[in-house]
Amino acid sequence: MWYSLQATVTDGWNLYSTHHERGCSMVDNPLDKMMNPASIAFAGASNTFTTMGTIQCMNLITGGFPGEVLPIHPRETVVLGRKAYRNVAELPHAPDMGVLVVPTRLVPDMVEEFGKIGTRNLVIITAGFRETGEHGGELEKDLAERARRYGIRFLGPNCLGIVNTQLPLNLTVAPIQDLDGCLGLASQSGTYIAQVVSYLHRNGIALSKAISVGNETDISLIDCIEYLGADEHTRAIGLYIEGIRDARRFLEVASRVSRIKPIVAQYVGGSEAGARSGSSHTGAMAGPAHLYEALFEQAGVISVDTIEEVYKVGWALATQPPLSGRRVAVLTNSGGPGTAIAHTCSREGLEVPEFSDDIQKQVAGLLPGHASARNPIDLTFHIGMETLTETIPRILFSSGEVDAVIIHGIMDTGFMDLLLPAIQKFVPVSREDLAKTMMIGLEPLVDMPFRYGKPLLISSFFGTEDHCIQTFHEHRIPCFDSPEKAARAMGAFLRHLRFRQRPPANLDGAGTPPPEAVRIVERARKAGFDEFSAKALLRAYGIPTAREARAATLEEAKACASTIGYPVVLKACSPDILHKTELGLVHLNLADEAALEAAYRALRSRDQDTPVLVAEMLRADRELMAGMTRHPGFPPCVVFGLGGIMAEALDDIAVRLAPLGMHDACEMMESIGAANVLDGFRGMQALDRNLMAQVLMGLGRLAIHFPLISEIDLNPIMVVGGKPVVADALMVTQNGTQGPRTGKCTP
Amino acid sequence: MWYSLQATVTDGWNLYSTHHERGCSMVDNPLDKMMNPASIAFAGASNTFTTMGTIQCMNLITGGFPGEVLPIHPRETVVLGRKAYRNVAELPHAPDMGVLVVPTRLVPDMVEEFGKIGTRNLVIITAGFRETGEHGGELEKDLAERARRYGIRFLGPNCLGIVNTQLPLNLTVAPIQDLDGCLGLASQSGTYIAQVVSYLHRNGIALSKAISVGNETDISLIDCIEYLGADEHTRAIGLYIEGIRDARRFLEVASRVSRIKPIVAQYVGGSEAGARSGSSHTGAMAGPAHLYEALFEQAGVISVDTIEEVYKVGWALATQPPLSGRRVAVLTNSGGPGTAIAHTCSREGLEVPEFSDDIQKQVAGLLPGHASARNPIDLTFHIGMETLTETIPRILFSSGEVDAVIIHGIMDTGFMDLLLPAIQKFVPVSREDLAKTMMIGLEPLVDMPFRYGKPLLISSFFGTEDHCIQTFHEHRIPCFDSPEKAARAMGAFLRHLRFRQRPPANLDGAGTPPPEAVRIVERARKAGFDEFSAKALLRAYGIPTAREARAATLEEAKACASTIGYPVVLKACSPDILHKTELGLVHLNLADEAALEAAYRALRSRDQDTPVLVAEMLRADRELMAGMTRHPGFPPCVVFGLGGIMAEALDDIAVRLAPLGMHDACEMMESIGAANVLDGFRGMQALDRNLMAQVLMGLGRLAIHFPLISEIDLNPIMVVGGKPVVADALMVTQNGTQGPRTGKCTP
Repeated sequence: MWYSLQATVTDGWNLYSTHHERGCSMVDNPLDKMMNPASIAFAGASNTFTTMGTIQCMNLITGGFPGEVLPIHPRETVVLGRKAYRNVAELPHAPDMGVLVVPTRLVPDMVEEFGKIGTRNLVIITAGFRETGEHGGELEKDLAERARRYGIRFLGPNCLGIVNTQLPLNLTVAPIQDLDGCLGLASQSGTYIAQVVSYLHRNGIALSKAISVGNETDISLIDCIEYLGADEHTRAIGLYIEGIRDARRFLEVASRVSRIKPIVAQYVGGSEAGARSGSSHTGAMAGPAHLYEALFEQAGVISVDTIEEVYKVGWALATQPPLSGRRVAVLTNSGGPGTAIAHTCSREGLEVPEFSDDIQKQVAGLLPGHASARNPIDLTFHIGMETLTETIPRILFSSGEVDAVIIHGIMDTGFMDLLLPAIQKFVPVSREDLAKTMMIGLEPLVDMPFRYGKPLLISSFFGTEDHCIQTFHEHRIPCFDSPEKAARAMGAFLRHLRFRQRPPANLDGAGTPPPEAVRIVERARKAGFDEFSAKALLRAYGIPTAREARAATLEEAKACASTIGYPVVLKACSPDILHKTELGLVHLNLADEAALEAAYRALRSRDQDTPVLVAEMLRADRELMAGMTRHPGFPPCVVFGLGGIMAEALDDIAVRLAPLGMHDACEMMESIGAANVLDGFRGMQALDRNLMAQVLMGLGRLAIHFPLISEIDLNPIMVVGGKPVVADALMVTQNGTQGPRTGKCTP
Repeated sequence: MWYSLQATVTDGWNLYSTHHERGCSMVDNPLDKMMNPASIAFAGASNTFTTMGTIQCMNLITGGFPGEVLPIHPRETVVLGRKAYRNVAELPHAPDMGVLVVPTRLVPDMVEEFGKIGTRNLVIITAGFRETGEHGGELEKDLAERARRYGIRFLGPNCLGIVNTQLPLNLTVAPIQDLDGCLGLASQSGTYIAQVVSYLHRNGIALSKAISVGNETDISLIDCIEYLGADEHTRAIGLYIEGIRDARRFLEVASRVSRIKPIVAQYVGGSEAGARSGSSHTGAMAGPAHLYEALFEQAGVISVDTIEEVYKVGWALATQPPLSGRRVAVLTNSGGPGTAIAHTCSREGLEVPEFSDDIQKQVAGLLPGHASARNPIDLTFHIGMETLTETIPRILFSSGEVDAVIIHGIMDTGFMDLLLPAIQKFVPVSREDLAKTMMIGLEPLVDMPFRYGKPLLISSFFGTEDHCIQTFHEHRIPCFDSPEKAARAMGAFLRHLRFRQRPPANLDGAGTPPPEAVRIVERARKAGFDEFSAKALLRAYGIPTAREARAATLEEAKACASTIGYPVVLKACSPDILHKTELGLVHLNLADEAALEAAYRALRSRDQDTPVLVAEMLRADRELMAGMTRHPGFPPCVVFGLGGIMAEALDDIAVRLAPLGMHDACEMMESIGAANVLDGFRGMQALDRNLMAQVLMGLGRLAIHFPLISEIDLNPIMVVGGKPVVADALMVTQNGTQGPRTGKCTP
């Protein structure tokens, strides 16, 4: 068995090369060795069955692990039937991996001992490090430093173990019930790996690999995504996330993997109480929900709200063929679930198209008179199960009119067993005999999704007590216990289709800054950016701004105005002045030289020295805004929304992480709630998306080139004849020449 | 037993009188007799166990129904062991109720036969009526007419039966597993009553009454709400809704009931495919989601998105004490679920407050060093169960610092049975012996919510295979299989608290119209409303408008302007002109007589005859809109949103059904997405909510008084110094003088 499993692992590597060509490199992923060790030293197990370490080691030994297990115990000579060793130094050889479930204070020394004998992979389950405060943080640094010194890669600390159902290998507290599955999990909460075995089994879900990442001191959640992405047995990936420390790498890895395999993730963070709990747990960094929305969208990660969806939607994506269009057939034997599925499909952006006359005629011939054949098909209660499980599904799958099928209402023994006691009061029938007449042969149905290459999802109010549900579980057809959940899961298939169909993420970097931009920033480095220099910098990135000039005297201002052409705008221009409008330092719509002069004198009456800016007066039918903010651990965040006060009032903004591709910029515009304002709304000219995308992409490049600039606020961007023109620009630099404004465009 | 049950029913009536005093009258509810018959004639059962009628009759007989069952069958002399009668006329006496599961064409005659012998209550399960088209509709009218003639009240047709677990009485296809429950259901889809027995049992949910309403030809869903509202055994009500025909009565009944008992409802409608399915199913009327949101909000109905929540959230509300504040304690033995619960609580508007130092100290003493005592409390894996199930819960319930408790992670035999086979490989321990040491006594915990009057919700990944879950089910402590679901259910408790705490719904009607209003409408009845008369009508309802006057000549216009004071606005004024602005028929900001004259001549150059309107020029810092639309089956719908193009662009509007109370109007303003614009936003003066509420309430009264007016659009309403002033008003009458505008404020 051990050898055949090795062969499987080798096949895995063959697949890697394929993946590698498709951009899914996994060279030197530290998890590869860790998930497939030939020998494991286990420190922290005894013969007392109430301790976590003992239970974990017991599961390792009894769970079919084909390699060697070497318990380490200071006193016991035999642990769980295996010879035990007093310490690491006494081990007969350096095992491929060590597992530590020992008291916190012993961990750093033991890491070093493993290093000395040559073991290079550790799973550190012990808790009590960074997540507990300063002292724990010091201990963690110490252990990390010692591991680094010996070239040791490790998972944890404060994790709950790993699972590889293909080997099998199980280091968690719960025995694995289903081997050789195809959903891979990685979680920042150990319980979602270790305490869900029974739940997954009840729902027919079989894992391929599962990894509790703990404090991610060395191996991170991102390494797990990379590993699972390359693992041939893993067909979809589920993640539980409380915070990502390196969003840039997450984006790189996940966007590559998600083009091949669906990734489903729950992000829990952003709320104060959630953060309080999260930080006490893994010390991971929570951030505003907007940032993670952007990150997941760009990375092609399907975001869900519950851990249930991580498992169940992940399982559906792992087992079913991918969706290739948005048309769904809904087949039920009762109206409510059909209506609910159709309604939820619509919400998810799927279509439940009325069938062609031809298909309706074929289906109607199989239905009682009062049943509907239009889609949803409602067979009503009266009909035999075969119509629901074979005849009509075959018509639907082969029709060419739909891309997926959802069926509600298939059941046999679950319902039969409910009725049996009553029936037996009248007829002397045995369960066996009754079951023979009632049990449905589902073989044709469970084959259809794979034969026709279209996903099939099942909804049923019965569980594993029903033979049909058991059969679906055996054949890896996903079952949902509420009609809406099946429809929502189908929505996840659609999101993955969208991710697969779009161009690859823009990961090429931002190139080098234009020489003119470098000069402008150098000049602004000390003095800060005034509006004029900020706009000059924008223009260096091809971002259109209002035509304008800086003037120091009235005569200069007049000359500028006559070059630009009346009417003009006159405003004070200094890096030290914020909120010009509120201070009365902006004069709009100056029709002629007289008006200009009056405005100039008004400005000078308040301020003798500041230069003034003479700009063209823009006539816009809409105002937009764009901006840039920075967040620790994240690439620069480019923000887009309606201009003026609306973006702030409505919190209706879109965020993307730089650098942006054209696709990101366009999707960003369409994703604000008020996106229809960008179209030819109320007779206005539609926004030139291409030009606006240049603004957003330019902002992203600029932000990458100049980390000195901590914040940018372009508001308003006037839409003139459909073209965006920046009318006001604010840039804040890190050296604090200009303090940050109120969090106007902070996502 | 029969007599004692009668006693219970009598107690029920005693409770009615109490309810009646509290406004929950149920006099003559037709369901009362139907749910508690002493004798039932059943037409449509045979001795063939594959037909629906037989199964239903079998469940009735074997399910413990204490009354008489009289089968009717044209040929069989004995059905299911009872003497059968050939037809209705041959019955030995008139039973309290008849049940019909016979071919569609036989139903009308049989209804009449029951009428002739004196039976006055029928459950008509047979389908094939209105839901199938025109012919079925005729049959349904016929049966309704014959029933009316004999004073028969009936449920259905096209329903799947009723359940009363207190009697017990079960007319559905599935045997009831749990008697004497406390969640009442009424559903427009029969499957949600008849096909969920096994599901409900698995989730520990016990129904009190359940009603499948079918086509609602006579008894409606609203009758069910009224009945369940008065039923002493029903502590919360769950509804599945595809359409409400009489929204006004729904509002009256549900708003009365929901102040006493929580009502949870799923509305499925509004999408095209959903409506296609819904109409084929019960022929109920689907409508825009906005309308139902408004209806549920005003009726105090807790709206949910899935049928799972109807059951599970309904069950939680039925079994637990109501919430009296928003503070939740979260107690877990693992970080992820704690974080997820805290995060979801925040989303639901609940607080997960950090405990006082005192409580933290008490709790911390019970935790291992690295565990968090702040809230969420994370005990981590290592700890004995008693801390999770008794010691800390008691501290939390008695602390006075929280209003509810959510616990995740309690388990015993579910986990034990997973480990048992492995343990038995090392230790010769029996399941019984191990269970003795592991099984947790949950008696103290299950008592706490009732002792302290605070709800307790449980989250666990284990199901009924775990002894703890079984115990929670027995003691009616709700269990959720995903942490987020428990938190969302707690959100429903908060919504019910909000409904209970607000003033009763405004059901007093709209009074009589002001005499001035009657005169204005009479004048407009033929000619339609021009802007001037529309505003005059608004003023009759106390709605402030811009000061303005109508003029036929330039001299009149000048006189008006000098009375109003410059600057003024000049616009054409005719019921026949829409879109004045787009046509260039509005001149703003006329500073003096010269400007007025120029504008007047410009208007006249386009139109020689139309009167003009001279109005004050309003200087607003924000623009709002309000309106009124009508929808079949619904009271007039009052609409509110931001003015200008924003309400339309963002679909950010709030709707309430007239008549509005002050509370409705205020809640409406706060419920738009851009509500913060109404506050002292960016230094502007806050909107005078009281004045704006007068506008909205006035609109509602006006709409009730004059059904002739089919649509009203007040846009913009200028906010001047915080006070709303209607600047433009459009009223459309049914006689079509003015065609309806593009669906600007149609919800």
